[in-house]
Amino acid sequence: MSLTFDWKEDRNLSLLVDFYELTMANGYFKNGVGEKIAYFDMYFRRVPDNGGYCIVAGLQQLIEYLKNLKFSDDDIEFLKSKNIFNEEFINYLKNFKFTCDVYAIKEGTPVFPNEPLLVVRGPIMQAQFIETMVLLTINHQTLIATKANRIVRAAEGRTVLEFGSRRAQGYDGAIFGARAAYIGGCNATACTIAEKQFGIPAVGTMAHSWVQLFDSELEAFRAWARTYPENCLLLVDTYNVLKSGVPNAIKVFNEELLPRGIRPKGIRIDSGDIKYLTEKARKMLDEAGYPDCQIIVSNSLDEYIIKDVLRQGAKIDGFGVGERLITAKSEPVFGGVYKLVAVEDNGKIVPKIKISENEEKITNPGFKQIYRLFDKETNKAIADLITFHDEVIDEDKPLEIFDPIFTWKQKTVTNFYARPLLTKIFDKGDLVYTSPSVNEIRSYAQSELNTLWEEILRFENPHRYYVDLSTKVWGLKQRLLNEYTKNYK
Amino acid sequence: MSLTFDWKEDRNLSLLVDFYELTMANGYFKNGVGEKIAYFDMYFRRVPDNGGYCIVAGLQQLIEYLKNLKFSDDDIEFLKSKNIFNEEFINYLKNFKFTCDVYAIKEGTPVFPNEPLLVVRGPIMQAQFIETMVLLTINHQTLIATKANRIVRAAEGRTVLEFGSRRAQGYDGAIFGARAAYIGGCNATACTIAEKQFGIPAVGTMAHSWVQLFDSELEAFRAWARTYPENCLLLVDTYNVLKSGVPNAIKVFNEELLPRGIRPKGIRIDSGDIKYLTEKARKMLDEAGYPDCQIIVSNSLDEYIIKDVLRQGAKIDGFGVGERLITAKSEPVFGGVYKLVAVEDNGKIVPKIKISENEEKITNPGFKQIYRLFDKETNKAIADLITFHDEVIDEDKPLEIFDPIFTWKQKTVTNFYARPLLTKIFDKGDLVYTSPSVNEIRSYAQSELNTLWEEILRFENPHRYYVDLSTKVWGLKQRLLNEYTKNYK
Repeated sequence: MSLTFDWKEDRNLSLLVDFYELTMANGYFKNGVGEKIAYFDMYFRRVPDNGGYCIVAGLQQLIEYLKNLKFSDDDIEFLKSKNIFNEEFINYLKNFKFTCDVYAIKEGTPVFPNEPLLVVRGPIMQAQFIETMVLLTINHQTLIATKANRIVRAAEGRTVLEFGSRRAQGYDGAIFGARAAYIGGCNATACTIAEKQFGIPAVGTMAHSWVQLFDSELEAFRAWARTYPENCLLLVDTYNVLKSGVPNAIKVFNEELLPRGIRPKGIRIDSGDIKYLTEKARKMLDEAGYPDCQIIVSNSLDEYIIKDVLRQGAKIDGFGVGERLITAKSEPVFGGVYKLVAVEDNGKIVPKIKISENEEKITNPGFKQIYRLFDKETNKAIADLITFHDEVIDEDKPLEIFDPIFTWKQKTVTNFYARPLLTKIFDKGDLVYTSPSVNEIRSYAQSELNTLWEEILRFENPHRYYVDLSTKVWGLKQRLLNEYTKNYK
Repeated sequence: MSLTFDWKEDRNLSLLVDFYELTMANGYFKNGVGEKIAYFDMYFRRVPDNGGYCIVAGLQQLIEYLKNLKFSDDDIEFLKSKNIFNEEFINYLKNFKFTCDVYAIKEGTPVFPNEPLLVVRGPIMQAQFIETMVLLTINHQTLIATKANRIVRAAEGRTVLEFGSRRAQGYDGAIFGARAAYIGGCNATACTIAEKQFGIPAVGTMAHSWVQLFDSELEAFRAWARTYPENCLLLVDTYNVLKSGVPNAIKVFNEELLPRGIRPKGIRIDSGDIKYLTEKARKMLDEAGYPDCQIIVSNSLDEYIIKDVLRQGAKIDGFGVGERLITAKSEPVFGGVYKLVAVEDNGKIVPKIKISENEEKITNPGFKQIYRLFDKETNKAIADLITFHDEVIDEDKPLEIFDPIFTWKQKTVTNFYARPLLTKIFDKGDLVYTSPSVNEIRSYAQSELNTLWEEILRFENPHRYYVDLSTKVWGLKQRLLNEYTKNYK
């Protein structure tokens, strides 16, 4: 029995697929089109919480899944028992080897609606099969990284600690949620295993039960200060913050730390009115000679509450943010989709489109690249341009871009440079990319955010960042739309 | 390299703990109180979505975690590297053996605010350590089972399929979410691995990409009907539901199935106005001789939309419910808490209370049992009564119960029987309970729901089910509240 947790090695999620991916794969196989080359785009349609951008995350976990994708004897037995799959298809799965090309936008990049975060090219049987895991992985971590970044922005430079494990939606929700929250800008997590796995600093001190276990709050604080003199952060709201918690904390700081020349770390308040209590507590700590003693607050916080209490002048040095971060409570779904955009016929790329009665569900056809255009002078991002994969952008010429729906909204971009966003991750199934560490991803996210105009970073009613189609992509889309719809007038 | 997924054996989640559980455990150890016997209650404070009850779930996964709880060499190395833990404490973890008693309400039981779903009795070091996993496991699955049950109720006997894996919050969110949704009453899932692991029926047919891959919708439908004649459910909204999808489906039913005497399974609509499209599609199918052809709808459904379109007369046989079920979107957090309620001093139970400036955060002290009182005539549940663990209920005498806050609200219960809800799961660390299968849990949940009055099952403004304290528990709580608060007037 192995108790070492290494999910990429030991954990078989090969059948974490929607069942239709299997019925389709088997169907493609049986109809002799399983090896047909197909192109899928993964993209999303809107930013949660009406924000201006998302932070993409989860690529590393997706890579680990794809790199190790194969089917165990158990899996094969299970599939046989369903009695609907072709024997040759089952054999194909037995000897499965992943051979797709995968292109992706790097983790930590700010991304926008309708641009592919991931492009998969390969035999339709395979490219279709991985749909659920692509979506599940990227949707989850992008959701949490984006939410975390909102909360971190609201805290305006103060510490933000991710405290949500106990209210996460499942174990991975806690672990990969902690990872995504850190990428989004949190300073640390309470989730211990996230430090072991990813090197994200794990922090924590005491719960109310510590205080309750001792005969008095004072005794409980004393025991803590003696056990962790260098890490003395006391939870002061078990009985009464201002009449018991803070006075007892000061008493213990004076008796246990002061004589040894150690400064206290702080106090934590987990209930009651944050604004009132922190103002009073700050005053008491300052007057007792502890202006450096931090005040950490927790209790169902999110970016809205944080902005509001800071606006009111609450005296806070750090926030412990739990359930509303780890579940992205205000909008807990990231609606990424995975759509067929092209197939190959005799080596030629044939673009595909999905029409829909809901306009926003219509896809952008073709095998594509995205260029982010930056102003040469300010290094600020101007717009993203979705092109075909082989279009070349001439940085020396003015570039005309236009809104793909309101085409009269046009802009001539000059003095710019263009950076492709989609990087090759797998080449015919071979991994050709090395994931950075979470610390590198976190720093990269911060520096990329600095390329966005403030108007995009605004919480309420942010400016919509331009994501335009090249003339070629736009033209093709119009042509396909007209072709299909003329039949259904 | 093991590719067999058996998380209870292969997956080490021992360090999926809030870091404070480690600092506290180490602190208890160092202060010589680590072996002190403590009692913790896990309970919740309100029902999500303003519903009348929750369905508790997740116990089986918690059992598997606790049964296998130990620390790998990796874990130990990691903890040493933090340089804050006592060497003897590390050694204690090296030789860790779980020795707590655990009592729990059985999975599938309807439960109510403020009653313990789980009681843990054991050395404080251990009972505290498992806090995060207790909460994470029970919170997540109870949330989803409860949400699923709302959706199933809204569907009024129609099929409900759980389709949410791609939008779940992490892999476990999908897998254990599928389990909880099934316990809550869903008929099947799209999540294949959930069938392999739990025997929950996995279903699915085709995505839009199947239709797009072929040269025409008609060809795509034909290929499907030939591949899966017995399971012919066609997705009809890739181009145009009424002008293309349904007519093509009928054509293929006529050409491919009718001559072979096979009835079609159905059609699925994933976009557009459900009410309008299903009414029209139903008429077309009926007129073509397929009144038995089912209409399945999907596209961001939940109990609110389902109730609304059914009220409008939409013609629907089944619902595929995705993101709003698997994330419990309308209220994605289940706020279970884990609180110290007693300790033992020389074998005597000393109750503990946590005061709070937020009244609802005040705990019920003591080692407790819960009795559900049923009417002997109707077998309907009358109230739950929280007692001390050793209180005896005399079913032959009238029982006075009263609201613990508005104590003038009283009721005399007669002609009743009382069933204890907390069952022993672990006895000094030994598992003494056998988890039923998910099918058994699902049936049990249904039969238990039948004991609730309709007033409790209502969606809007349901009647509040009585959860009362025994006179003894109530009296103790008042005494402790008065004792503590007199100091802070």
